[in-house]
Amino acid sequence: MTVLTLQQATRHVEAGLAKAREMGVSMNIAVVDTGGHLLHFSRMEDAWLGSVDIAIKKARTAAFFKMPSSAIGELSQPGGSLYNIEVTNDGLVSFGGGLPITDPEGRIMGAVGVSGGAVPQDVAVAEACLA
Amino acid sequence: MTVLTLQQATRHVEAGLAKAREMGVSMNIAVVDTGGHLLHFSRMEDAWLGSVDIAIKKARTAAFFKMPSSAIGELSQPGGSLYNIEVTNDGLVSFGGGLPITDPEGRIMGAVGVSGGAVPQDVAVAEACLA
Amino acid sequence: MTVLTLQQATRHVEAGLAKAREMGVSMNIAVVDTGGHLLHFSRMEDAWLGSVDIAIKKARTAAFFKMPSSAIGELSQPGGSLYNIEVTNDGLVSFGGGLPITDPEGRIMGAVGVSGGAVPQDVAVAEACLA
Amino acid sequence: MTVLTLQQATRHVEAGLAKAREMGVSMNIAVVDTGGHLLHFSRMEDAWLGSVDIAIKKARTAAFFKMPSSAIGELSQPGGSLYNIEVTNDGLVSFGGGLPITDPEGRIMGAVGVSGGAVPQDVAVAEACLA
Repeated sequence: MTVLTLQQATRHVEAGLAKAREMGVSMNIAVVDTGGHLLHFSRMEDAWLGSVDIAIKKARTAAFFKMPSSAIGELSQPGGSLYNIEVTNDGLVSFGGGLPITDPEGRIMGAVGVSGGAVPQDVAVAEACLA
Repeated sequence: MTVLTLQQATRHVEAGLAKAREMGVSMNIAVVDTGGHLLHFSRMEDAWLGSVDIAIKKARTAAFFKMPSSAIGELSQPGGSLYNIEVTNDGLVSFGGGLPITDPEGRIMGAVGVSGGAVPQDVAVAEACLA
Repeated sequence: MTVLTLQQATRHVEAGLAKAREMGVSMNIAVVDTGGHLLHFSRMEDAWLGSVDIAIKKARTAAFFKMPSSAIGELSQPGGSLYNIEVTNDGLVSFGGGLPITDPEGRIMGAVGVSGGAVPQDVAVAEACLA
Repeated sequence: MTVLTLQQATRHVEAGLAKAREMGVSMNIAVVDTGGHLLHFSRMEDAWLGSVDIAIKKARTAAFFKMPSSAIGELSQPGGSLYNIEVTNDGLVSFGGGLPITDPEGRIMGAVGVSGGAVPQDVAVAEACLA
């Protein structure tokens, strides 16, 4: 297993922060390891305080299921096969902004979670973290 | 940043209590600071005990996202972009009754949360708190 | 059972706030009913944020066991008969500052909890609430 | 009130990380604002996972009571005036490693929390964060 280092996590976050500043949105950005444990976190000035927890939970959701947080949301709607799965694991977030971080061979090394804007903005910053 | 004083919070609550008595509904009214920490709380006789926590969580929701709690609820419905966001932050409330408190320049100083009646009644009392 | 009204709770709190101001200490004062449910809460300017929860838990401890919170602390020490009871009930506080509120016949109507200063200061303000 | 920026928090953390590397210990370093909300977090390679939460709770403890976390521990021992205060506020940490961050006028802007080594090592790194 390739371990995600603090240095790599910092680079992911800095790329995301640059994108967020370019977009003019105050973001919270969290990076977790494969176990969902926090590795790095940054909150920009004036970012919503409620988004601290959401950013961390998006990252944990992506790490726990090795898929974008939004993929869970497709199955967790009323009538869906994972209806209300969000209440498990001390809270999952099933909308966009959580993305797995993979090594060059495609193996999961952790995940990033972004919260602070509209969901498409969160997703854009999460993608910038990984670019 | 202007800090909300206990005296100001008490005035907001008293205005809300007066409205609630006029309406004949027993309310719980909570006031929190910008960080979502409790500043003032009042429960009227015979108010639902389950509404103690709801009033506090409505106020925290409004403070954490700098918007009325009901604005979250417009996006958190099935199929919405923030579906099930309520499970984050140790519980958010996304229906009406939580409103930000702003200073004359429009900066957020905290929030009020009201629970105890039908939602339109909660909203009416929350608005009376701020009037 | 005599029910503690919001008006009575407010009078208890105001007596405590007056004492706290006289002493020059910023306090958090909570009042709960016989079930330990919050009835009234006030936080003075610059009071420790960590004391919000402590004031509420002191009041709940006194209401749950119908005795001063400090009475629990005499039995919860290492080797004592209630060792580490503090971890139950989602957190009890076993040092001074929580006192039962009784009616003229001595029946418990609720409790007050005070936190924000040294423990003897908290106790002095709690006693002022009941005087 | 002076607000702690992400840039300032990052500088505090980088000073701590440099000290930790010099000491050869893998640390978790958390920075919170005056309300105890996470602003920045870094975990070094091989740092104990159990120390993620401890670092954050040390920082919150220092912010909530405007004093070093160890000052709480002097009073929370068996027989002490704040015995078992640790069970409040969803968990406080009362040993060393949490320190308030102050502005040049001595006003609290937030706090840092360090965990990952022996407590004197945690304290040394926390002090390096503020140097």
